[in-house]
Amino acid sequence: MAHIETISGGVTTPRGFIAAAAACGIKDPTKPRLDMTVLRSVAPCVAAGTFTTNKVKAAPVRVSQEHLRRDDVQAIIANSGNANACTGPRGINDAKAMVRATAKALGLRQRQVAVCSTGIIGLPLPMDRIEPRIPEICAAMTAEGGADVARAIMTSDTRPKETAVRFTLGGKSVTIAGCAKGAGMICPSMATMLCFVTTDATIGKAVLQKAVQVSVEQSFNRITIDGDMSTNDTVIVLANGEAGNKSIEPGSADEKLFRKALSEVMLKLAKAIVSDGERVTKFVEVQVRGAPTWLDARKVAEAVAKSSLCKCSWNGGDANWGRIMDAIGYARARVREELIDIYFGGVAATRGGLASSTPLEELRKVVENPAFTIRIDLNLGDAEYTVYTSDLSPEYVDFNRSEYSMIKRATVQG
Amino acid sequence: MAHIETISGGVTTPRGFIAAAAACGIKDPTKPRLDMTVLRSVAPCVAAGTFTTNKVKAAPVRVSQEHLRRDDVQAIIANSGNANACTGPRGINDAKAMVRATAKALGLRQRQVAVCSTGIIGLPLPMDRIEPRIPEICAAMTAEGGADVARAIMTSDTRPKETAVRFTLGGKSVTIAGCAKGAGMICPSMATMLCFVTTDATIGKAVLQKAVQVSVEQSFNRITIDGDMSTNDTVIVLANGEAGNKSIEPGSADEKLFRKALSEVMLKLAKAIVSDGERVTKFVEVQVRGAPTWLDARKVAEAVAKSSLCKCSWNGGDANWGRIMDAIGYARARVREELIDIYFGGVAATRGGLASSTPLEELRKVVENPAFTIRIDLNLGDAEYTVYTSDLSPEYVDFNRSEYSMIKRATVQG
Repeated sequence: MAHIETISGGVTTPRGFIAAAAACGIKDPTKPRLDMTVLRSVAPCVAAGTFTTNKVKAAPVRVSQEHLRRDDVQAIIANSGNANACTGPRGINDAKAMVRATAKALGLRQRQVAVCSTGIIGLPLPMDRIEPRIPEICAAMTAEGGADVARAIMTSDTRPKETAVRFTLGGKSVTIAGCAKGAGMICPSMATMLCFVTTDATIGKAVLQKAVQVSVEQSFNRITIDGDMSTNDTVIVLANGEAGNKSIEPGSADEKLFRKALSEVMLKLAKAIVSDGERVTKFVEVQVRGAPTWLDARKVAEAVAKSSLCKCSWNGGDANWGRIMDAIGYARARVREELIDIYFGGVAATRGGLASSTPLEELRKVVENPAFTIRIDLNLGDAEYTVYTSDLSPEYVDFNRSEYSMIKRATVQG
Repeated sequence: MAHIETISGGVTTPRGFIAAAAACGIKDPTKPRLDMTVLRSVAPCVAAGTFTTNKVKAAPVRVSQEHLRRDDVQAIIANSGNANACTGPRGINDAKAMVRATAKALGLRQRQVAVCSTGIIGLPLPMDRIEPRIPEICAAMTAEGGADVARAIMTSDTRPKETAVRFTLGGKSVTIAGCAKGAGMICPSMATMLCFVTTDATIGKAVLQKAVQVSVEQSFNRITIDGDMSTNDTVIVLANGEAGNKSIEPGSADEKLFRKALSEVMLKLAKAIVSDGERVTKFVEVQVRGAPTWLDARKVAEAVAKSSLCKCSWNGGDANWGRIMDAIGYARARVREELIDIYFGGVAATRGGLASSTPLEELRKVVENPAFTIRIDLNLGDAEYTVYTSDLSPEYVDFNRSEYSMIKRATVQG
């Protein structure tokens, strides 16, 4: 298969995308940080997206889902600091007002603008600090604005997350780039997962939507930090066709290459979200092998990745395979205790459901690393599943003890 | 309905039960604490029990499940400090050896003895410290030994948990008493939930088993501390008939009273387990009302009770209703966001899915209490469900970072 090159850059690296951001005091009126951004394409885009399956959906999710049904989306406006969730009809009006102001400033129809919010749940957006700033942001957009998009969507993230790849389709150079934010609850909650991907590829809506589904399944759906799922999770992909390649046909080698490149971008961003999770000190890849079915493999991987006890032990650099066995047992998957092998970084901790002869110190050395793999072989079949997760630290709990009150004070009193 | 009196006492308070315990160095050979106990009835008992549904089952669970099929169980031997889980055929042999030694010392058949273990997973039992001590414990049993049973099964519990009730059936005074341990993972894991209940009531096996099922469903199945489910969870109820009441008939008023009394004992022990959870600072009752079905109510209550984010906020005394809305949304239950009301201790935080007008400080006052109720009204039907849970503290995580290594060192080096 053709080569996919990782390049530096972000969402304005593909041809025909521009962006800008501003500090509007949504996060904290007293300490302005970038918290609103607009990203647009010079031409109408084929768009695809996936959204939270939470039944409590933020207002911008409802509005953007509607707009993404069409084929000419051209811009995204996003803010951080306030999720515009649990805000009722007022929230819908506010999300639509953000869309309206953006469409007006960019000379687009309202349905061509998607809207995203991330941050605190349950407070109305401070529209007086949002609406007046939209024309100014729209006037400042450049092809160098991508890095600011990545910064403006951050909440408790400690660093911006962006990546880009380049490859060739039918002699034409094609770029896919993306940025994301996560940090809090991944399957996130307060902090929400947002991901924007741009590409200059020419591609039809059905082919793009399928590629997005496949890539999201193998990336963002494989990560868990604290098991909570947000009201605002959103992945939006915009393809503007500026690369001039022949439109990607279903079933073609071009489609295969595009999917591979898109998956690379999303997986890199998904892993970056885990590594930058709130007070995370360990990146852990949980690989399940030898399951009777894919679903059994997934149940086992997710049970281990979400177990508070396993996560605590990883934080302590402790190779506690007993807690892993326990989580495998309650995963409601088909397993046989006496067949289970568990490896830390390739070193056997458990063979046939029993402690291996590996000295504990050798296992500890693996778990003391900042990143390691746990492989679980159920020895019952051929199905596999992998989840990317993190440890659970005392600092995570401490950080999340009082976030709401802090933000509430900042917002209400600001 | 007749009066049920709470009395002081434990598992040897009902007529015809005796017990003793000893410090055998299973927990820590260098600092002897009570860690093995035998409880027996003077007469064969009608027995009933419920066991973990974890597919990774400890050896003693497998052995006791088999023995409880019969109608003449008369004794329980239990140890703490080692769960005898993930120990393979050797573990089964060790559990059977504990049963054999106990049966021999008490002059019983092996099938009349149940066996329970709780503690570290994956290490073989130190049988050299267990077997020789069994005759001595069996020789020391008295009707005052109940409190020592409660102590000997403790692991990371900070205090023994026992309770007793007395009531009258057909002119005869009947006593039900119980002790339990929990502390760690409730739905527990390392630390396991064990509960022994004794009664002098005369009751048939089917009637008793049904009463146990109903009572467990309303008590131990309603508690969650960290969402993990143990390999060793066991509830055993022994009824020896020494009260001399007429055997409790199915469908009778006597049956109703017995169930009520048994439920009281189990609920009190279940709540005590939550309050004494590892590094727990809050006891939280999550009541869901107005659900379309019982299952919807349960899904919502469990999602909220298990949410790391909600639990962190309670630890911080923070009335974060947005995280509760988020958890309700991902519970996979039938809910309508715009109908949801949330109350902290009777004070409305959320009405119709939106922030209520209650000042935040008033809500904080509720959450700052060591115990409080969260009521969620879905306003969609009549079904209800209640879960008892706790906060999540930085100290919990810190405590569970390295438990395994500590115990492992103590056990292996001792």
